[in-house]
Amino acid sequence: RVDADRLWNSLMEMAKIGPGVAGGNNRQALTDADAEGRALFAAWCREAGLELTTDTMGNMFALRAGTEPGLPAVYMGSHLDTQPTGGKYDGVLGVLAGLEVVHALNDAGIESRYPIAIVNWTNEEGARFAPPMISSGVFAGAIDLDYAYGRRDDDGKSFGEELERIGWKGGEPVGERTMAAYYELHIEQGPVLEEEGCDIGVVTDCQGLWWLEFTLTGRAAHTGSTPMGMRVDAGLAMARIIAMLREVVEKHATDNAMGGVGHMGFAPNSRNVLPQTVVFTVDLRCPDKAVLDELRETVEEKAEAICAALGVGCAVEAVGQYAPVHFDPGLVATVREAAEALGLKHRDIISGAGHDACWVSKVAPTTMIFCPCVGGISHNEAEEITAEWAEAGANVLLQALCKTAGA
Amino acid sequence: RVDADRLWNSLMEMAKIGPGVAGGNNRQALTDADAEGRALFAAWCREAGLELTTDTMGNMFALRAGTEPGLPAVYMGSHLDTQPTGGKYDGVLGVLAGLEVVHALNDAGIESRYPIAIVNWTNEEGARFAPPMISSGVFAGAIDLDYAYGRRDDDGKSFGEELERIGWKGGEPVGERTMAAYYELHIEQGPVLEEEGCDIGVVTDCQGLWWLEFTLTGRAAHTGSTPMGMRVDAGLAMARIIAMLREVVEKHATDNAMGGVGHMGFAPNSRNVLPQTVVFTVDLRCPDKAVLDELRETVEEKAEAICAALGVGCAVEAVGQYAPVHFDPGLVATVREAAEALGLKHRDIISGAGHDACWVSKVAPTTMIFCPCVGGISHNEAEEITAEWAEAGANVLLQALCKTAGA
Ligand SMILES: NC(=O)NCCC(=O)O
Ligand SMILES: NC(=O)NCCC(=O)O
Repeated sequence: RVDADRLWNSLMEMAKIGPGVAGGNNRQALTDADAEGRALFAAWCREAGLELTTDTMGNMFALRAGTEPGLPAVYMGSHLDTQPTGGKYDGVLGVLAGLEVVHALNDAGIESRYPIAIVNWTNEEGARFAPPMISSGVFAGAIDLDYAYGRRDDDGKSFGEELERIGWKGGEPVGERTMAAYYELHIEQGPVLEEEGCDIGVVTDCQGLWWLEFTLTGRAAHTGSTPMGMRVDAGLAMARIIAMLREVVEKHATDNAMGGVGHMGFAPNSRNVLPQTVVFTVDLRCPDKAVLDELRETVEEKAEAICAALGVGCAVEAVGQYAPVHFDPGLVATVREAAEALGLKHRDIISGAGHDACWVSKVAPTTMIFCPCVGGISHNEAEEITAEWAEAGANVLLQALCKTAGA
Repeated sequence: RVDADRLWNSLMEMAKIGPGVAGGNNRQALTDADAEGRALFAAWCREAGLELTTDTMGNMFALRAGTEPGLPAVYMGSHLDTQPTGGKYDGVLGVLAGLEVVHALNDAGIESRYPIAIVNWTNEEGARFAPPMISSGVFAGAIDLDYAYGRRDDDGKSFGEELERIGWKGGEPVGERTMAAYYELHIEQGPVLEEEGCDIGVVTDCQGLWWLEFTLTGRAAHTGSTPMGMRVDAGLAMARIIAMLREVVEKHATDNAMGGVGHMGFAPNSRNVLPQTVVFTVDLRCPDKAVLDELRETVEEKAEAICAALGVGCAVEAVGQYAPVHFDPGLVATVREAAEALGLKHRDIISGAGHDACWVSKVAPTTMIFCPCVGGISHNEAEEITAEWAEAGANVLLQALCKTAGA
């Protein structure tokens, strides 16, 4: 069994790095705070006797040797980066629960046939650099390394430059290592488990995503002296697109379709100037790939029609995507059995959020474990979990890992 | 008559300060570029033998003495600040045409009974600090000095601090001086004069304005794992408000109502986080005060209903306003006669944009002269005029001023 206090304390220690403004965290990828968080994690890994390697995307791997030579490791992990106004657990729990699992094995003197390893994936959130899960994507061969290096934040800084700047560009070629299996413990980020009084979500699937970045081109013009009929109003086009998005998504409510917009930029962004350009990203999700792709098509077509009617230019770029994922049935069963054996109330669940596990599933048997979070609130500094939920999740991780790694 | 080349050259010289990215200017109020532009203007004023005084809002007054002691001056002017992606003429023409008028009088050795003066008003655009025309507003007693000092830009810097920082906070109490009259030459910023082949607009009125800054409060939440029914989506509320705004304005098309949004901010502004807050400013205009105020009420009511239906918090602050203005009939007639005498094709026109003249009209007989601009394009770096239009406008200014100042 894991030590619930040690796990909780490590979460609270990590949360001191990159504090937010309302009790949460701002430890965005490849910032100084990210570097500080990585250094703390690396120090903890060394204390636990693990051997640390970093790859050229900054992914960190901390290895505990197995008893049988030549076997690939069984991995656990998640990410230490956060949203600009993020919580203390999203991602962090999966990494630090991995560390706690190692401590528990060390304390009990338990060895495993397979090596076991903890991984911290770079820029999972995609908050600073789209797309999310970019480094597990490169690891899995789904995203091109140079494309990843070239991604830019809102200030125009590139991923590649920032990775070098913070000193966490390692030497190992990305995707080189083989994973015998990958387990990711994560908070649900939704309300289902808490509402049903479950301690554990057995994650069977992850829904798919499209991030569609719209660049609408209007004509910068005076809001007071430009006749209504002469305006090329990109802001109006944006508004109609977002209203339309909601309608389209609601029509697909039975398919569990989701859509929203979190990122928006007007230029020149002056109160008395109609925008020259409006850039925003539509976030579309659905567990059903056919519906997801149909949603994308419908939204793009309708957006183009809205823009055409206003004379507004409309360019769409997919800056993030992954197809819905079915996790490895064998590992899913292992997680279910572990929860069962520990007497924890559990249910099968589909992940609404994307996770590094989605990309890793392309190259290794993979699954996830969810624990509840208060009110389903995440990507918000108010994100909260209980120490008991963290403990339950970590114990399921420990049991499942031991089974797969032969401990 | 003015020297058209000298006027044009001065416009081109000033345009070198605070260059834009596409041939226009970014010389926003109280930036280093603004300070540089002021210094150049001040040097030119001294060369022309004018006496310069600056008030505590940074308004600059350059005086040419009259022949009769004790008379208040007749003023000409406008503003040297620009939009972030602004043109080379908006405001600048009115100031530098004033200087050219002085040069023409100096060259011809003409004196005037009344002193004459040129004024450069601080932060007319309101691009960096809302509201626009803030300093003429303080001059006219319509805006409180401390309120003005406390206005903040998007980076949180205050007007008062920035005015001191650039070294243009003068000693004269704002609004102290009496104006015998105020003439403002400006580009139309709309398409009417050019379309009708007119050289001169005789400005009889200026429409009124409301700037309504909406702060919508949603709940930051994950775009993927937050069920549609649990979302408090401030971005959706914003979209519905902008779509509604257009409908409301179109219903009042016969009243020449206008509405648009140029300023928008999402927080935390991350692609997979529904915004915690969305802040944007609705720009509403109408020449009819009753309709303008009714528009404001309708838009606020409907916006509140839209937000209420989504559970989104809605706060509205009026960050800019002025009522429609009728300019001084005597001065309007003087402008019309001057255009007539010069053989220039002219028409009466209502200003769509706000101008410092609107506030000055509260404390002095005031009017404006418009010249055309290409395609009606303004608040855009592509803003353009011809040297002939500038010359025509400056000659009307010269003639009208001479009449009023007794030259
Ligand atoms: N778990 C999580 O918040 N991932 C970020 C990627 C996404 O938007 O789903
Ligand atoms: N002339 C001009 O562009 N003034 C700015 C104030 C306004 O928005 O009307």
